[in-house]
Amino acid sequence: MGDASRVIRDLRELAARTSNERGAQRVCWGPIWRDARAWFEAKVREIGLDVWRDSAGNAWATLKGTSDRTVIIGSHLDCVPSGGWLDGCFGVVTGIEVLRHYASRGEAPPVTIKVVDWADEEGARFGRSLFGSSAAAGTLRLDDVRSLKDRNGVALVDALRENGVDLEKVLDARQELARIDARAYLEVHIEQGPVLESWKKSTGVVIGTFGVERHMIRFTGQAAHSGSTPIEMRRDAFLAAAQTALACRDIARKHSKPGAGVVCTVGVVNVEPKFVTAVPGGCEISLDQRALDPAVLAAMHEDAHAAAAQAAKDNDVTVEWTHLWRIEPRPFDPTLLGFCAEALQEEMGEAPRLPSGPLHDAAEMVPHMPVVMMFSSSARGLSHCKEEDTPEPHLVTTINAFLRLVDKTVAHVAKG
Amino acid sequence: MGDASRVIRDLRELAARTSNERGAQRVCWGPIWRDARAWFEAKVREIGLDVWRDSAGNAWATLKGTSDRTVIIGSHLDCVPSGGWLDGCFGVVTGIEVLRHYASRGEAPPVTIKVVDWADEEGARFGRSLFGSSAAAGTLRLDDVRSLKDRNGVALVDALRENGVDLEKVLDARQELARIDARAYLEVHIEQGPVLESWKKSTGVVIGTFGVERHMIRFTGQAAHSGSTPIEMRRDAFLAAAQTALACRDIARKHSKPGAGVVCTVGVVNVEPKFVTAVPGGCEISLDQRALDPAVLAAMHEDAHAAAAQAAKDNDVTVEWTHLWRIEPRPFDPTLLGFCAEALQEEMGEAPRLPSGPLHDAAEMVPHMPVVMMFSSSARGLSHCKEEDTPEPHLVTTINAFLRLVDKTVAHVAKG
Repeated sequence: MGDASRVIRDLRELAARTSNERGAQRVCWGPIWRDARAWFEAKVREIGLDVWRDSAGNAWATLKGTSDRTVIIGSHLDCVPSGGWLDGCFGVVTGIEVLRHYASRGEAPPVTIKVVDWADEEGARFGRSLFGSSAAAGTLRLDDVRSLKDRNGVALVDALRENGVDLEKVLDARQELARIDARAYLEVHIEQGPVLESWKKSTGVVIGTFGVERHMIRFTGQAAHSGSTPIEMRRDAFLAAAQTALACRDIARKHSKPGAGVVCTVGVVNVEPKFVTAVPGGCEISLDQRALDPAVLAAMHEDAHAAAAQAAKDNDVTVEWTHLWRIEPRPFDPTLLGFCAEALQEEMGEAPRLPSGPLHDAAEMVPHMPVVMMFSSSARGLSHCKEEDTPEPHLVTTINAFLRLVDKTVAHVAKG
Repeated sequence: MGDASRVIRDLRELAARTSNERGAQRVCWGPIWRDARAWFEAKVREIGLDVWRDSAGNAWATLKGTSDRTVIIGSHLDCVPSGGWLDGCFGVVTGIEVLRHYASRGEAPPVTIKVVDWADEEGARFGRSLFGSSAAAGTLRLDDVRSLKDRNGVALVDALRENGVDLEKVLDARQELARIDARAYLEVHIEQGPVLESWKKSTGVVIGTFGVERHMIRFTGQAAHSGSTPIEMRRDAFLAAAQTALACRDIARKHSKPGAGVVCTVGVVNVEPKFVTAVPGGCEISLDQRALDPAVLAAMHEDAHAAAAQAAKDNDVTVEWTHLWRIEPRPFDPTLLGFCAEALQEEMGEAPRLPSGPLHDAAEMVPHMPVVMMFSSSARGLSHCKEEDTPEPHLVTTINAFLRLVDKTVAHVAKG
C-alpha cells in the first residue's frame, strides 16, 4: 500500500507553491500552471521516471510493467482562477503515490502504469473544458476552438504555442493514445457537491457522468409601461420564463428516483428592457438538464419543451430555443465499478454509489477503455473557490480506497 | 369652440421641427427642447400674449380675465429621447388653442386662463421626473437632486444654469404658484396604454393617478454547481424570485375590480453568479405596485411581503426589501370629473372612465387645487417611442371634448 499522509503532504506543498491569498492559481497555459507541472515532473523524476508530453500538451509519467497492457490513472493539475487546493490535483498527486508504491517494490509491476495530467480540464481561460482529454479521445473539433481568445484578447493558438503545443497537431494525441494498450482508466476526484457530506460518507463509487442538454430559451412578448398596461393585456416575457423555470424544477423532481437523481438548472436570466417601470418584453434563460439515463434525459428535455410552450401560451408570448451543448451520459464499466465497490467495502465497510453531475476527463475515456471514478466528499459542497476543502480523514480513507482499487485493477489486467 | 384641426396642424409642425428619423428629441434642458419652447412662445405671441418663466423654469402663458380666479391648463413639451409626437406636447398645444379661442372672442373671458408648459416632466436626462411641477407644488427635495448628473457627467445644476434656472431658487416656484388664485387644473394627455383602444374609445375621463409602491427585493441562497447539487439540496435564489413574481401577478388579479384594476410589475431581474452551470445564489428583482385606492395599495404591498417571505421559506433562502419610491394615490376632483364626463357625453355619447397608471404633472397639483385629466387613446398602447400614435379622428374628438371641459370649468369658476 502507498502512504496517504504523503499524498496530503504533497498536496499542501503544491498548494503553498501555486496559491495566493485568493486561492489556487493553476490556470492552464499560464506560468503558475507551468510551475505546478515542473513540480509534478520533479516528483516523478525523484521516483526515477520520466514525463512525456503528447501532442495536446497532456503530461504522461510511465512505469513500465512486464506487460504492455496498461492501467491509466488520470486527472488534471489546472484549476479555475482563485480555485481550491484539491480540484484536479488530488487525482494527479494520488497518481504520483501509486507510481512511488509500485516503483518501490523492487520488481516491475505485472502491467504498465501511466499517470496522465490532462491539459486544460477546466477551460477556465478559453472556455473549452476537457481540452486535452477530448483531443486524446478525438472528440475535440478544431473548428470550434481555432478562434478562441481569452479576456485579454490572447488567442488560444498563441497560448498553446507558448507551451510548445501546435493547435493544428493536437489531434495527433488521438493516435498517441491509441498506441497505448490501455485496459483501464481510473480517476479519483473530489465530489464538488454536497451529496457524500449529507450522507456523512468520506468516499463514493461514481457510477458514471451525467449526460447534459444545454440550451438558451428566449421568450418574446411586448415591452409596456408598468403603470398603463393592465395585467390581462400584458405579454410579459419574464413571467413566462419564471413559470418555465419553476416547471423545470418540477420536471427534475418527477424524473428523479432514489439513487438516480436528475437536475434542471436555470442559471442565466436576462430581461429586456430591464427598467423598474417596464413590463419585460423579452427574457432569455439558460436551461441545463442532466441525467445518467439517456432515456430519462430525453424525456426531461421533451417535458421542458412542453413546459416552455405552455408558459408561452399562458403568457401570450413566443418561445425560441437555441442549442448550446449536448453530451450523452457516460456510464462507467461494470467490472471496474465492482472493484471500486470492493475497495470501499474493505476500507470503510460500505460502498455508497452516486453519479457525477460535473463532467470529468474520465468521461472522454469511456468510449476507448473501461473507466471508473471514485469521489471524496467536499465540505459544504463547495468547489471552484478557495473555501473548497475535504476533511483530512476523508482524504486519507479515499486515498487508501483508491490504492486498493488500483491494486485490484492491476491484478485483473495482469490476468489478461 | 376652438379648431381641432389647427391643433393637429400645430402638432405636426412642432414634430417636423423637433424630430429626427429616430423620433422626437425634445429632451428637457437641451437645444431641441429650447427650440420647442421658442416655437411655443412664438405661437403665444401670435395671439398677442406673453410667456413668463417661473423660478423652476416652467413657462406660463396668461390670458387675463375679468376676474383673477384662474383656470390652469398644463402639460409638458419635453419628451424622452427618440420619443413620440404626442406625449406631453398634445396638452400644451391644445392649451394654445384654448388661448386662441378665448382671445378671439373680442372680450376678456370671465376668469383668467393660464397655460403652463411644465419643465422636465420626463426626467429623461437626470432621472427626476415631474421636476417643474413638483417644484411648484413644493414636493421637490433639493437634497435629492443636487448631485444628479447625466450620463455624460454634466451636473443638473449646470444644465439648469444654462437655461437660466438657479437650482437653489427653484422652490420659489411654490410661492409663485400660490400667488395665483387657481380654481382648477385641467390636463389632456395621451393614455400611453392600451385600455381605451381595447374598448374602441377615442377618449376617457381620468379618475386619478395611481399610488405607487416601488421596491427592490433581494433573495440570497447559495450558489452551487448545476451538475453536482441535487434539487432538494439547493438554495436557488432565482426560483424564489420567480415564485414571488408570479405570486405578485396573482396579487394584482386578486385586488383588481371591474373599473378599478391594479398592477404589479417585476421589471428588473439580476441573478448571480449568472453562469449556465451555476445555481443562482443571489437574485434581485424590482417590484412596482400601483392602485388608485390607498387601502388596496397597502393591502397589495402587504400581500407581496407575505408572498416573498413564503417564497424565501419554500426555497430555503433569505429575503430583504429595499424601498425605492412611494407616492400616494391622487384621486381627481368630483366636480371636475362631472364636467369631464358631461363633455365626453356631449361629444361622443358616452364617458368611459379609467385611472392613470403613469404619473402626470396633474398629480402634483392635486393637493393645491381641483384637478382633472382627460386621455386620448394610444395606438397599440405604445408611447416613449417613435411608433407612438393616435388615430387623427380620436385626437379630434378628444380636443373637442377638452374644449368643452374648459368651457364648463370656466363657466363654473366664473360663478365663484
